[in-house]
Amino acid sequence: MKNKNLLVVSAHAGDFIWRAGGTIAKYVKEGANVTLIILSFGARGESNDLWNIEGQTLENVKAVRRAEIEAAAKHLGVTNYEIWDYEDYHMEITPERTLQLLQKIREVRPDIILSHGPKDAFNPDHETVSSFVFETSVLATSNGVRDVDLPCIKQAKLFGFEPHQSEISDFKPDVIVDITDTYEQKLAAMNCFKAQKHLIDYYAAKAALRGNHARRCSGKNQYKYAEAFYRFFPLVGEELI
Amino acid sequence: MKNKNLLVVSAHAGDFIWRAGGTIAKYVKEGANVTLIILSFGARGESNDLWNIEGQTLENVKAVRRAEIEAAAKHLGVTNYEIWDYEDYHMEITPERTLQLLQKIREVRPDIILSHGPKDAFNPDHETVSSFVFETSVLATSNGVRDVDLPCIKQAKLFGFEPHQSEISDFKPDVIVDITDTYEQKLAAMNCFKAQKHLIDYYAAKAALRGNHARRCSGKNQYKYAEAFYRFFPLVGEELI
Amino acid sequence: MKNKNLLVVSAHAGDFIWRAGGTIAKYVKEGANVTLIILSFGARGESNDLWNIEGQTLENVKAVRRAEIEAAAKHLGVTNYEIWDYEDYHMEITPERTLQLLQKIREVRPDIILSHGPKDAFNPDHETVSSFVFETSVLATSNGVRDVDLPCIKQAKLFGFEPHQSEISDFKPDVIVDITDTYEQKLAAMNCFKAQKHLIDYYAAKAALRGNHARRCSGKNQYKYAEAFYRFFPLVGEELI
Amino acid sequence: MKNKNLLVVSAHAGDFIWRAGGTIAKYVKEGANVTLIILSFGARGESNDLWNIEGQTLENVKAVRRAEIEAAAKHLGVTNYEIWDYEDYHMEITPERTLQLLQKIREVRPDIILSHGPKDAFNPDHETVSSFVFETSVLATSNGVRDVDLPCIKQAKLFGFEPHQSEISDFKPDVIVDITDTYEQKLAAMNCFKAQKHLIDYYAAKAALRGNHARRCSGKNQYKYAEAFYRFFPLVGEELI
Amino acid sequence: MKNKNLLVVSAHAGDFIWRAGGTIAKYVKEGANVTLIILSFGARGESNDLWNIEGQTLENVKAVRRAEIEAAAKHLGVTNYEIWDYEDYHMEITPERTLQLLQKIREVRPDIILSHGPKDAFNPDHETVSSFVFETSVLATSNGVRDVDLPCIKQAKLFGFEPHQSEISDFKPDVIVDITDTYEQKLAAMNCFKAQKHLIDYYAAKAALRGNHARRCSGKNQYKYAEAFYRFFPLVGEELI
Amino acid sequence: MKNKNLLVVSAHAGDFIWRAGGTIAKYVKEGANVTLIILSFGARGESNDLWNIEGQTLENVKAVRRAEIEAAAKHLGVTNYEIWDYEDYHMEITPERTLQLLQKIREVRPDIILSHGPKDAFNPDHETVSSFVFETSVLATSNGVRDVDLPCIKQAKLFGFEPHQSEISDFKPDVIVDITDTYEQKLAAMNCFKAQKHLIDYYAAKAALRGNHARRCSGKNQYKYAEAFYRFFPLVGEELI
Repeated sequence: MKNKNLLVVSAHAGDFIWRAGGTIAKYVKEGANVTLIILSFGARGESNDLWNIEGQTLENVKAVRRAEIEAAAKHLGVTNYEIWDYEDYHMEITPERTLQLLQKIREVRPDIILSHGPKDAFNPDHETVSSFVFETSVLATSNGVRDVDLPCIKQAKLFGFEPHQSEISDFKPDVIVDITDTYEQKLAAMNCFKAQKHLIDYYAAKAALRGNHARRCSGKNQYKYAEAFYRFFPLVGEELI
Repeated sequence: MKNKNLLVVSAHAGDFIWRAGGTIAKYVKEGANVTLIILSFGARGESNDLWNIEGQTLENVKAVRRAEIEAAAKHLGVTNYEIWDYEDYHMEITPERTLQLLQKIREVRPDIILSHGPKDAFNPDHETVSSFVFETSVLATSNGVRDVDLPCIKQAKLFGFEPHQSEISDFKPDVIVDITDTYEQKLAAMNCFKAQKHLIDYYAAKAALRGNHARRCSGKNQYKYAEAFYRFFPLVGEELI
Repeated sequence: MKNKNLLVVSAHAGDFIWRAGGTIAKYVKEGANVTLIILSFGARGESNDLWNIEGQTLENVKAVRRAEIEAAAKHLGVTNYEIWDYEDYHMEITPERTLQLLQKIREVRPDIILSHGPKDAFNPDHETVSSFVFETSVLATSNGVRDVDLPCIKQAKLFGFEPHQSEISDFKPDVIVDITDTYEQKLAAMNCFKAQKHLIDYYAAKAALRGNHARRCSGKNQYKYAEAFYRFFPLVGEELI
Repeated sequence: MKNKNLLVVSAHAGDFIWRAGGTIAKYVKEGANVTLIILSFGARGESNDLWNIEGQTLENVKAVRRAEIEAAAKHLGVTNYEIWDYEDYHMEITPERTLQLLQKIREVRPDIILSHGPKDAFNPDHETVSSFVFETSVLATSNGVRDVDLPCIKQAKLFGFEPHQSEISDFKPDVIVDITDTYEQKLAAMNCFKAQKHLIDYYAAKAALRGNHARRCSGKNQYKYAEAFYRFFPLVGEELI
Repeated sequence: MKNKNLLVVSAHAGDFIWRAGGTIAKYVKEGANVTLIILSFGARGESNDLWNIEGQTLENVKAVRRAEIEAAAKHLGVTNYEIWDYEDYHMEITPERTLQLLQKIREVRPDIILSHGPKDAFNPDHETVSSFVFETSVLATSNGVRDVDLPCIKQAKLFGFEPHQSEISDFKPDVIVDITDTYEQKLAAMNCFKAQKHLIDYYAAKAALRGNHARRCSGKNQYKYAEAFYRFFPLVGEELI
Repeated sequence: MKNKNLLVVSAHAGDFIWRAGGTIAKYVKEGANVTLIILSFGARGESNDLWNIEGQTLENVKAVRRAEIEAAAKHLGVTNYEIWDYEDYHMEITPERTLQLLQKIREVRPDIILSHGPKDAFNPDHETVSSFVFETSVLATSNGVRDVDLPCIKQAKLFGFEPHQSEISDFKPDVIVDITDTYEQKLAAMNCFKAQKHLIDYYAAKAALRGNHARRCSGKNQYKYAEAFYRFFPLVGEELI
C-alpha cells in the first residue's frame, strides 16, 4: 500500500466511516496517500438526530457535522480531506460538479478510488454519487477530455462501499479487507457521531460478521474484523489471488 | 506463487489446456507445485475428430488422447499428472470417486484449486465436475470427515475455468491472469491437439481478447494475452486489490 | 399463530437454533403446534470443535450433540422433536427417506413449513435438504400419491432459513420476523452449544442487524432483534401486507 | 384495512384501474382512507383510440379522459382524487413536482403507497414515476427535509403495480391480493374506457390467471380473481405470513 | 415448416396441450413431421380430479388419461405419438431411459425439439425432464456416443414450454408463436380434459394474453392468440429476425 | 431483407463498424434501405490515438474522423448516412434532440432499428444512446405524439450491439448473424481506422469467436464469421425459429 494514491469520495458526512473507516485507517498507516472528499454534510437526509432538537438551524447542523468529521478523520489519520458542501436529499450533479471532480481526480492520480457502489435500496443519493464518480473517472482517462488543464490518467481501480441493507441492494462482497489492526481506530471514529448510537452498534456488529466470513473464506483465524467492498471491474493481475 | 500448491482438476483431456494452459505454465515457471488430475480422456464427448476415422476403437481413441496429454503437459512444464479414466458423456460421480478425490486433496493440501465453474451451457459433464470438486473440497476441510486417513486441510481458494460460450453460461470474469510470458507454451500445448484446429484458433483469439480486457481494466499495456476465471468465494486479504 | 401447525426441518443439530430459534420460540409461546425434525447430528460436517478432542468417537459426538439439542429445545419450549440420524456431509436422499418425510408431513398437516432455502454457498447439505423438503411437500398435496395411507393436505406455506453467508448465497430477506420478546430464549438455546462461541457471537450480531433493518423498513422502533427468511411462493391474501 | 391511509399514484388515466382497481375498491369498502393522484391524462401516450378520430384536439382528449376517470373512480368508490395534468410521453420530474408530491405525502401520512414498480419494458413514464414516488417517499421521512411546512412521516409500505408485460419487465408477484368480492366493481370501472376493449379483455383474463395462482399458492378455493403487486421492501412483522 | 422434423417431449399427459397445443397443430397443418413422446400418464401428480372419485384405481386413471390423450392428439392432427408410462411424482431418470430417448432422437433426427424449460416453480418433474431432454440431445450429437447403433445428428434447436406460473419460474418469453389459425383445435384438445375446467379457462386466458403481447411487440393486429416459449440457445441465422 | 428499412444509430464514429459492420453490409447487399445516423465524432472519448499527436485540435480530430467514416461507409455500401455532431463524453439528450430523432424515425419508418444495448460497463454514452433510441422509438408509435408532422409508425424491431466487454456488461447473444459473405467488407471498413490497430485485431478475433458459436448452435459449418446482438423484445412470429 505504501505510496499508493487512494481517493475516497463520500456522499454524506459519515459514509466513509461506517463503511470503510478501518480500511482507510489501514491505508494511512501503511503509508498510502489518502485524499478524502466529502460531498455533503448530510444535513437534510442523515441528521435526523440533530433536527429533533428544538430550534435547530441548518448552519448549526453543518457546524456539528463539521466538528464530527474533523474528529473522526483525526482518528483515522486522514489529514487531507475536503468538504464540498453539496445539498443532499436530493443531491444533484451538474456539469460544474463533474468538472470539479475531474480536476480533483487528475490532480490526485489515484491508483484506487473508493466510493459508493451502484445500488443502495434506501438511499438515492448514494446511487447518484456512484454514477458520478464512475463516469467522471472514465472521463479522467480520456485524452480528448480537455476541460481541465491536467494530463489524463490511467484507469484507477474502483471499489464501492457495502450499502446499509446489503441484500436488498444486490450487494455481494467481492473483496473483504481485514481491519483487525485498525478496528479500534474505526470504533473511535464512529464514536465521534455520538447521537447515532444505533449506527455505531450496527457497524460494530457488521465488522464482526465480516470478520467471521473472512476467516471462513481464507482459513486465517487471526482475522477478527473486516469490511466488504464491491469491485467495479475484474481483478487483473499476475496470479490467481 | 513460489512453493504454492496448485491442484487442477480437468473433466476431459483438453479442458485444462484450452482454458488455463497459460496460467498453469506460469505457476510451474514461478516454482509452484502443480498437480493435475484429468478425470477422463473425453473419448465419447470430445473426440469427434477421432471418431470420424473409419474403424476407430475406444482403446485407440484413449491412446491418442493419452499421447496428446503427455505432449501438452510437457509443453506446460507439468510433470505431476494423473488420468483417472472415468467414462465421459455422462460422467457419473459415485461415493468411491468422492473418496478418491478427497484422498488426493488431503494429500496435495492445495492453496488453490482450479477446475470447472458452476455453469456450462453446452457441457453437462463440466457442471458435474464443478459440483464434485467444490463439494469434495468442503469435505476435505471438515475434521469430522474421517473416511480417509489424512488430516483435514484449510479452505483452499477455488477458481473456475471460463466455459466455451461464456455469456450463455452466465460467466463473468472475476480474475484475469496475464499470460503474456507463457503464451507460447500454451500455443505449443494446444498444437498437440492437431485435429482440433478450430479450437486452437478459437482459444488463441480468446487469449487476445482477454488481453485487451486486461489492458483496459488495468492500464498495463504490456499485457498481451490473458485467461479469465470465476472466483467461488470473495477475495479476502489485507488490501483493496 | 394460535393453533397453527408449524413443521421445522433442520439438516443438522444447530441449524434451527442459529437461524430460527427466536421465531420458533415465538410460535410456541403464542400457542402454535410446533413439530421439529432434525435430520442429522451434524457429526461429520458441523462438529469440528468436538473432533479436535483427542480420541473422539462418532458415538460420543452424537451423544454430546443430542444433549445439546435437548437443552436447546427446552429453552425454545419445543417438546415435540425427532432426530432422524441421517449421515451428514454428504447427506443422501433415498426413496425411503422421501416416504418418511411424506408420512410426517401428512401427519402434521402443517400450515407452515420452515426449512433451508434453496442456496447455501458453503453447505451442500442445506441445498439438498431444501429440495428434499420442497419436493416432498409437493407430493404431500397430491391426491394421487398414495404411498402412505394418509389423506393429502393443502399447500403449506414454505419458508427458508437465512444461510450463513447470505449475500454469496443469493439470499434476500422476504420476511423479517421480530423476535424481541423471545430473544433471551434464543440466546439461552445458542449457549447450549458452548464450544461454538464464534457462532453464538455471530448470530447475536446478526439478530441485532436484522432488528435494525426491521426498524428501518417498518418504522417500529420497538423491534430490537429479528430473523430473516426466504419465501418460496408469493404472499397470497386479503390485503397489501 | 379500516382507517388505514392508502395513497395511490397513477402515471396516466387508466393505470390504477387496469392494475389495481379491485384492490383499491376493497380498501374503500373496508373503510380505508384512499387518496388517488393521477399525474397525467395520458393524452399523448395512452389515447391512441381517441387520436384516431378525425379533427381530435388535446382539450377534447383530456375532457374525455376526465369523464372516464370520474366514472371509473365512482365505480371503485373513490371520492378523493386529483388529476395533476402533467404532460406524458415523456413525463418530466422537476423540483417543483417533487415538492408537490412531498406536500401531498406529508398531508396524507400514508400507511401504504401504491404506484408503479421499478421496471416497465414498454413504458418509460412508468419507470419515471416509480423513482419519483419512491424517492419522494424517502424525503418525506426525513426530519431535515423542511421544504414543506409539515412534519415528517414514518416509512410507508411501498407496493408497485404489475406492469403490462410482466415477464419482460422482470416482475415477480410478491403479494397477490384476492379481489373476488370487488371484481364486479373493477369490471364496471374498466368498462368506462369503452374504446379500449382489448385492454378490458386483457385485464379480465389477467385477474382470472392471478386468481388461479392465488388458489394454487394458498389452497383457498374461494379465490376467483386477484391482482399481483411488487413489494419494495421486505415484509416486516410478527409472524411468518 | 414443411418437412421439418419436430420432436415434442411431454412429462405428463396434458403438458403438450396446455402449453404448446396450438403450435403443434400449426406444424402438423403446415406439413411438418411431428413426433410426440409422453413420458407419463401423470397418474400420481396431475390427476387429482380422477382420484377424487371413490374407489379409483391406478389402471383406471391411466385408461382415462390414455383416452383423453388419444382424443386430444386427434384434434391437433398428431398421429405419431408414444406414451412411455414412466411413474411420475417423482419421475426418475435412469441410464436405460437415457438410452431410450437417445435412440428416439437419433431415429427422428429432429430439426426442433420442444419440451419443458429449465425451471418450474411448482413442478420438479418438469425440471427433471428439461435436463433429461437437453442432456440427451447433447449426447445425440456426439460421434463418440455409440450406445445406440444410429449415426449422430446435428444440433437440434431446443425450445421450452412456458411453465404454469411463469414469473416465479424465471420464465421470459423468447419466442411467441401466433396460433390464431389453430386456436380452435387447441381449444378442442383442451376440452378432452373435461374434468380440468379451471385449466381450460386458464390456458384460454393465457393464449389471449400472449396474443396481446404478440400484437404489441410486432404491430401485427391479426394475431389473436399465441403461445410463448423459452429458447435454449441464441438464434443463429442470416438476418435480424 | 430486400426492401426492409433498417435504421442504425451509432453513438460515436466507429461503433457501427466494430459491432455491426458485417450485418449492415449484408443488409445493403440484399437490397435493404439502410439509414445510418452517427450521433458524434467520438472526438473526446474515442480518439485517444489522435489526441496523442502534438498540437491536435478539435476541428482536425473531427475532420479525420469524418474522412474515416466516409471511407468505412463506402466499404459497407452505405450511402445514406448523417453525422449529427453531438458532443461526446458526456453525451447529453435534450428535448430538441428527441424531436430530431423522432422526426428521423417517422421519416425512415424502420422495420428494424439497430443501436446500442442497455448496458455497457465502460461507456456511459452507449447507455445514454440506448435509452434515447428506445424511448424515442416508443414515442414514434404513439398517435398522440404530434410534435412532428408525420404519421406515427408501427413498432419496429429493436436490436442492440454487443458491447466491448460483453460479460461484465450483462450481454448475452440473443441473435447471432452470419457475416461470412461480408466479412471482407467489414475488415476493409475497420482498416479505415488505421490508428486503432488493437481494435481491428480485437473485432476480427471476436467475429471468429462468434462464428464458432454460430456453428456450434446451428450445426451449419459454413458459418465462419458472425456478429451477436441483443434483442429488446421477444421474437414474435409464425414458427419456432
